[in-house]
Amino acid sequence: MAISSLVIHNPIPVARLSGGTNRVGIIRSHRSVAFDVHPQSKPSNGMAASPLNHLHLHTEAPPRTDFVDSSTSHLCRYEEMLSVPPKSPREVIASKWHEIHGSTEWENLLDPLHPWLRREIIKYGEFAQAAYDAFDFDRFSEHCGSCKYNKCKFFDSLGLIHNGYEVTEYIHAMSHLHMPRWLERSHLVNTWSKDSNWIGFVAVSNNEETERIGRRDIVVTWRGTMAPSEWYDNLQRELEPFGHGEARVEHGFWSIYTSKSASTRYNKCSASEQAMREITRLVKQYQTRGEEVSLTITGHSLGGALALFNAYEAAQSIPGVHISVISFASPRVGNAAFRDELHHLGIKILRVVLKQDIVPKMPGFILNEGLERFEDITGPLEWVYTHAGKELKLDACASPYLKRGLNPMGFHSVETYMHLVDGFAKTGSGFRADAKRDITLVNKACDLLADELRIPPWWQQEANKGLVCNEYGRWVRPRRDPEDIPSPAKKH
Amino acid sequence: MAISSLVIHNPIPVARLSGGTNRVGIIRSHRSVAFDVHPQSKPSNGMAASPLNHLHLHTEAPPRTDFVDSSTSHLCRYEEMLSVPPKSPREVIASKWHEIHGSTEWENLLDPLHPWLRREIIKYGEFAQAAYDAFDFDRFSEHCGSCKYNKCKFFDSLGLIHNGYEVTEYIHAMSHLHMPRWLERSHLVNTWSKDSNWIGFVAVSNNEETERIGRRDIVVTWRGTMAPSEWYDNLQRELEPFGHGEARVEHGFWSIYTSKSASTRYNKCSASEQAMREITRLVKQYQTRGEEVSLTITGHSLGGALALFNAYEAAQSIPGVHISVISFASPRVGNAAFRDELHHLGIKILRVVLKQDIVPKMPGFILNEGLERFEDITGPLEWVYTHAGKELKLDACASPYLKRGLNPMGFHSVETYMHLVDGFAKTGSGFRADAKRDITLVNKACDLLADELRIPPWWQQEANKGLVCNEYGRWVRPRRDPEDIPSPAKKH
Repeated sequence: MAISSLVIHNPIPVARLSGGTNRVGIIRSHRSVAFDVHPQSKPSNGMAASPLNHLHLHTEAPPRTDFVDSSTSHLCRYEEMLSVPPKSPREVIASKWHEIHGSTEWENLLDPLHPWLRREIIKYGEFAQAAYDAFDFDRFSEHCGSCKYNKCKFFDSLGLIHNGYEVTEYIHAMSHLHMPRWLERSHLVNTWSKDSNWIGFVAVSNNEETERIGRRDIVVTWRGTMAPSEWYDNLQRELEPFGHGEARVEHGFWSIYTSKSASTRYNKCSASEQAMREITRLVKQYQTRGEEVSLTITGHSLGGALALFNAYEAAQSIPGVHISVISFASPRVGNAAFRDELHHLGIKILRVVLKQDIVPKMPGFILNEGLERFEDITGPLEWVYTHAGKELKLDACASPYLKRGLNPMGFHSVETYMHLVDGFAKTGSGFRADAKRDITLVNKACDLLADELRIPPWWQQEANKGLVCNEYGRWVRPRRDPEDIPSPAKKH
Repeated sequence: MAISSLVIHNPIPVARLSGGTNRVGIIRSHRSVAFDVHPQSKPSNGMAASPLNHLHLHTEAPPRTDFVDSSTSHLCRYEEMLSVPPKSPREVIASKWHEIHGSTEWENLLDPLHPWLRREIIKYGEFAQAAYDAFDFDRFSEHCGSCKYNKCKFFDSLGLIHNGYEVTEYIHAMSHLHMPRWLERSHLVNTWSKDSNWIGFVAVSNNEETERIGRRDIVVTWRGTMAPSEWYDNLQRELEPFGHGEARVEHGFWSIYTSKSASTRYNKCSASEQAMREITRLVKQYQTRGEEVSLTITGHSLGGALALFNAYEAAQSIPGVHISVISFASPRVGNAAFRDELHHLGIKILRVVLKQDIVPKMPGFILNEGLERFEDITGPLEWVYTHAGKELKLDACASPYLKRGLNPMGFHSVETYMHLVDGFAKTGSGFRADAKRDITLVNKACDLLADELRIPPWWQQEANKGLVCNEYGRWVRPRRDPEDIPSPAKKH
């Protein structure tokens, strides 16, 4: 829906295309999406096909020749992998952590992708995914919009107990602006909060992980939004001034980062203040012990935008800490002056971006796509959105496991990003033969895996939506474990 | 979809209505649906509301006065019931089983509804529901369209181990006609069957149940279709001759009951032949022992139609057995001559019908609704569909637990029928105060329970769609237990 609205409002004529109806022509203008049709692509089966898919699949695409996985051997490989543990080895990366976190702007590390960097990117991607997996989306729950687990058992509940980190604090956010479809709200009258949503968490590496990675790593993870359609309204918005210089940022994102209200339970402090207070506390705690400390900020989608604000603030107020942002599917956040300020503050930013995902093209998709070629002439424009940092660009066509065709949800999902990072060796080399990450995870919350793998789409779901049969034989909604019920008193 | 198409094609002017746009006027012509708006009805929340709901809720409805549950006490009652076992007592009904199965055409048993009859209707409703619960709808399974469990553990797997019956045989069906959206087919190439679906089962009462109910009861259960939209295409079809007389039946239903093909694995015999062979075997087995035997045939929706064919055949070929049909939401199946033949064969038919469900009005909804008033003049028409047997007519408005508004899936579901049978005391008396059936079950596969009950819609689902994490930490589809894999060799 977001796609078609977007496309209809902003058609770009694509010169190399001819023929077709007007509507097909418009759809085709998504070059990066519409032309990466794999030679093996076939019409989807009746269940999976959408009108957009059909429309797309009927366009004629030039066959790709740089694709090494054109046989059906990937299906055999998938079967073989089922009896191999899905984890890559955890090498000791202490000697190289500065480079892995951008001290040399990831020079010679991205293409081909260094295996240690690949593993660390996926580690932070799992943090970003955890922010969705732990979120209570159930509108019939009085705790809708909160984190389902308390911070002590967070990673344990998500099967991430061995990741080497401990959660130290949760962050909640509200927005004074009307952010369409951002706030998840319970249908019920009595709820834990009417204004706030759980928006992320702060974690710190334990001693073992600290030794492996060469420093005490404080991680802030910002939750995003999974559905690209939620972004549509923001396309219309303008940048607003930020700080004292020429920097401008998207005001909807900024509002979520900074809004607070004395009348709320969870946002008497803004998300910004909550995050900065916890980061400051942890940095002080570990620096006092004489440890080297890094701050790594991660997030997916909207979370990638919030990560930039957070990095900006931290760099201004906390000296002597290496700050990096590793974001996934982040939209543009501000103008060139904002980008330059981030750069001057010494923040290292690695944006992982999927060619077929439309969200990193937002906001300002049309304006920027059109202006990019003129940048040399126009110079950095004050009111034009731009990206900051280095880019690791993924291509869904590199994976023989994914369906072809338009799939906004699938191409925007963190799990898809992690799958493609895992399979990325270097540009154009096809899917990495020894990639071990569980491919099944891609379809957790979308419908992107090729049908022949037989993985149901949208498979991540609770048995009976969490209802259980009680001692009397009746189906009831169990109460949340008291220790997992959010409470402002438990904070800080 | 079915509704709106149906309505738009077949508007009926309703004299007592005036004003409104053409479209609203047409929707209003569903009197039974559109005017039973409960005084408590409120616009649904954003999540549950559909445009049709809105359309419906905006019509002006006269307040009902015959409704005893107009307070919010039903919410309290729901909470109280959570700690009471959901089963009614199992009285010994041996002395009255002939009447319960229609020997006196249910005279004085239906309104008010006799508690023994109510319990037996729900018992057979649970058979009808079991035919859905055990069906493999998963198109990524190579066993899609089969029964998930073998017959020995059928009731056990469905939590119905104490119902007093044992499954003795499964029935499979195919159709030589193109029956739109009837056959559930796997997406995979190698599947258990390409032509056939599991369509029902034959069960027989155990000794304990036989003693309680006064005879050995052979039950044939026919699976139907849950989605009313599947019926739409059949609306266009005509009756076809049946037998040697004037009887005419719907040829799509008849095709499912009688199709067979030597090239298939599961339908070398038709559903009819499979059912009749097993019934004949069981009747002989128990009659040889000198036991009194009854045949009770049940089914929901399409299953109700197949039940009539099955009863007709059994009555012709097996003398000396009391045959009754207890059907739920059955469409019309044949003409008045077919009805009369069923009657002359001594078959007792009880149709449980919900006023708000459109399926029992099919096929021939418009034609019949219009002609009913002229029946005295025209007499039984050879080419007009008609219902057979006695009717127990339920009204969704009698339950304070259900949402108002158009809801074709909800009003057609077996669980909704069982909920309303459980709550039915007599016409106009409101919901029975001591109804004990678990109300939560209504929302298993629809969205019909009032939001304030906080029961998620469509809650019946498997954890992670059946995927499990294997010993290596990978998510995989477990193989079906070999004893549950269908095989033609296991039959007979």
